[in-house]
Amino acid sequence: MTIVISALSEERFDDFANLINDLADYEKLDRPSAEAVTRLRADAFGDNRRFEAFLADIDGKAVGYAITFQTYSSFLAKPTQYLEDLYVREDARKAGVGGALFDHVQNLAKSRGCGRMEWQVLDWNKLARDFYERRGARFLHDWCTYRIDLS
Amino acid sequence: MTIVISALSEERFDDFANLINDLADYEKLDRPSAEAVTRLRADAFGDNRRFEAFLADIDGKAVGYAITFQTYSSFLAKPTQYLEDLYVREDARKAGVGGALFDHVQNLAKSRGCGRMEWQVLDWNKLARDFYERRGARFLHDWCTYRIDLS
Repeated sequence: MTIVISALSEERFDDFANLINDLADYEKLDRPSAEAVTRLRADAFGDNRRFEAFLADIDGKAVGYAITFQTYSSFLAKPTQYLEDLYVREDARKAGVGGALFDHVQNLAKSRGCGRMEWQVLDWNKLARDFYERRGARFLHDWCTYRIDLS
Repeated sequence: MTIVISALSEERFDDFANLINDLADYEKLDRPSAEAVTRLRADAFGDNRRFEAFLADIDGKAVGYAITFQTYSSFLAKPTQYLEDLYVREDARKAGVGGALFDHVQNLAKSRGCGRMEWQVLDWNKLARDFYERRGARFLHDWCTYRIDLS
């Protein structure tokens, strides 16, 4: 059994979109609409790409993905690698796929001079929180996230 | 008394850096090092700009600033306008400067098709939390932020 991590290509966009549907189901959220999937494709490739995505395959079958982009820390005056999504199909867990995706993004962040890697986790997702804490991540319990919905 | 919001120009970088020092003092954090200020200048301008900054002036004197950039929501498949810093000098508060900076960034976000505007606040900063809640922001109490320091 071999885990292969690769940058998302246009040919494999459907595999990627299927995994996003799986994640939506797992997080008890609505699946992205057809319009959202069209925007996601436009935002994944080309000169105006808004994020990078990576697929994890086991034996040629997509079983997980990561979405990441750079934010910025004004106090460090360095970019931060932000991990927007990290997902592994339930039937492929315990094989090291999540760790391989996470390490891949963390190595990218280091090679690009980022001062930090950051992400958010739903508080009930103990499995994910334990996974990240085993990897040395700190829970920033004193920072509160606020949002305004615009559309 | 007139509040003027303008995009940060290279000529006014020192005013901006002085306000960042004021914010560091207010948040009881270290001021950015000389090297950090040099990186901040490089990241504020040009084709590889990593953030946008806006200054707020009262009667021609810089009294506040905002730093913002776009992140991405994979589920909305839309950019998010992220507010990294919003600061008004203590001696210029209650004049509407914070509101003017916030509205400016929110209007940018709307005009650019963002689905959300997001930011983080230190939990002890009740003044800031009340300010944002008055403006209709929601505290996302079920999302936990995690970080790994890379440098």
